[in-house]
Amino acid sequence: MRNFVCDRVINFRDTDAAGVVYFANALAICHEAYEASLAASGIVLKSFFSGDVIAVPIASAKIDFFKPMFCGDRIKILLDSSLLSSDSFQVAYQIFFARDAGEDKKAIAIAQTKHVCIDSSTRKKVPLSPELLKWIEFN
Amino acid sequence: MRNFVCDRVINFRDTDAAGVVYFANALAICHEAYEASLAASGIVLKSFFSGDVIAVPIASAKIDFFKPMFCGDRIKILLDSSLLSSDSFQVAYQIFFARDAGEDKKAIAIAQTKHVCIDSSTRKKVPLSPELLKWIEFN
Amino acid sequence: MRNFVCDRVINFRDTDAAGVVYFANALAICHEAYEASLAASGIVLKSFFSGDVIAVPIASAKIDFFKPMFCGDRIKILLDSSLLSSDSFQVAYQIFFARDAGEDKKAIAIAQTKHVCIDSSTRKKVPLSPELLKWIEFN
Amino acid sequence: MRNFVCDRVINFRDTDAAGVVYFANALAICHEAYEASLAASGIVLKSFFSGDVIAVPIASAKIDFFKPMFCGDRIKILLDSSLLSSDSFQVAYQIFFARDAGEDKKAIAIAQTKHVCIDSSTRKKVPLSPELLKWIEFN
Repeated sequence: MRNFVCDRVINFRDTDAAGVVYFANALAICHEAYEASLAASGIVLKSFFSGDVIAVPIASAKIDFFKPMFCGDRIKILLDSSLLSSDSFQVAYQIFFARDAGEDKKAIAIAQTKHVCIDSSTRKKVPLSPELLKWIEFN
Repeated sequence: MRNFVCDRVINFRDTDAAGVVYFANALAICHEAYEASLAASGIVLKSFFSGDVIAVPIASAKIDFFKPMFCGDRIKILLDSSLLSSDSFQVAYQIFFARDAGEDKKAIAIAQTKHVCIDSSTRKKVPLSPELLKWIEFN
Repeated sequence: MRNFVCDRVINFRDTDAAGVVYFANALAICHEAYEASLAASGIVLKSFFSGDVIAVPIASAKIDFFKPMFCGDRIKILLDSSLLSSDSFQVAYQIFFARDAGEDKKAIAIAQTKHVCIDSSTRKKVPLSPELLKWIEFN
Repeated sequence: MRNFVCDRVINFRDTDAAGVVYFANALAICHEAYEASLAASGIVLKSFFSGDVIAVPIASAKIDFFKPMFCGDRIKILLDSSLLSSDSFQVAYQIFFARDAGEDKKAIAIAQTKHVCIDSSTRKKVPLSPELLKWIEFN
């Protein structure tokens, strides 16, 4: 299926004293791909993430690591979103080295985030907005 | 059972433009509790985390969120480690508000990390060190 | 004079692949001391940093490094605030190793932040609140 | 003169609960431009930043803010390096909104970092490498 693809270089700030990407930063890198994908769909990030009326917080996240990432490594993040219910969706991420190509590439890491749409003031669940439904359909 | 308990205040840098803790930072907060627990067991963090001879990278991590955390919130992180195999272990974390006490407290978030012990140069699995086995036994 | 003193351990997430604290994280560590000092003065961090009515953004920051900090290092941050004008103040920070004591201790790093009080909606300068003036007087 | 120019989008992780970029993250964003500039000059970031033989730590950093940056804002970072001595150099950064163009654009922030070249084991100053001298000449 279609996947949104995002290119990224591993920055020095992403690494830790073990010389590789700090584990929680790998999830932050996945979130950047999610943001890029929302922006590509026409969603205005500033208002979307300020949570003025509705907010779409992450209810759960997980990540599995297969290889270490070093400062300067060029990676590709593939993103695939899917609807879970009228008020929630999940995003699956696969991280690859940009130098790997073709059939035999193996993921460096795979991750997943689950998001729930809520009213910002009451924090009760509300249906996903039409713009988010459109975004999910195309990613 | 015994749990290691760590006190923490939510810092401004932990938050994002939605006004609450950025999801990946909650895992970093859990990792701080893991570090405090290792230090309390007598493990020297500087050499442990530099990965000079052996390294103990995180192979997977996951987190579930139940309530938002705001700047200034006082939290408690409960940590419980367990052996998975001769070369791996997992750590379970529960985050509570410090103001909640007694029987009826409900977690803000629960998380888990899995760690594998490897030789830093070959990156092959090696048995956990005696100091790590001792730490797991007591946490 | 009186200084607010804050104890801190260097966390793994503070470090980078060179094995020491990432330079920008040292400023974040100073900001944590600023937050602790505000909280100790009775200021509620959640509302203070949400910038609902007034905000006190950092207009400038600087830091000088004299020694590297490693994961697990125990440090002390000394903080000293002073009024610059009716709508601005500065905070000076000195970072020491906790193991150094007495007269001959030398700073690991010194830093400074300048803050301006603004109306959150217009972003025009407004006078510092009484609670901030009280905080400056005592730190 | 020639300047290295780097494009960047403000990510959600860069922001804080006041809704704008967290001050220390703005310096991290400048550092990303420095990394991109080194990579463009042919320097291999993984070995450069691991500090195996020589390291080039930041001795001081400063930043002045003129406008807030929000999640999703597209910025340009202009970078200009200059030699300070045989073993040190400085980098000046100017951050602009990508939407501003032409003569009348005003910087969002300006920053500066000073770097000293040291032997990683002795931490004594050593002359800058030929590759760094070449990089300084062209940026």
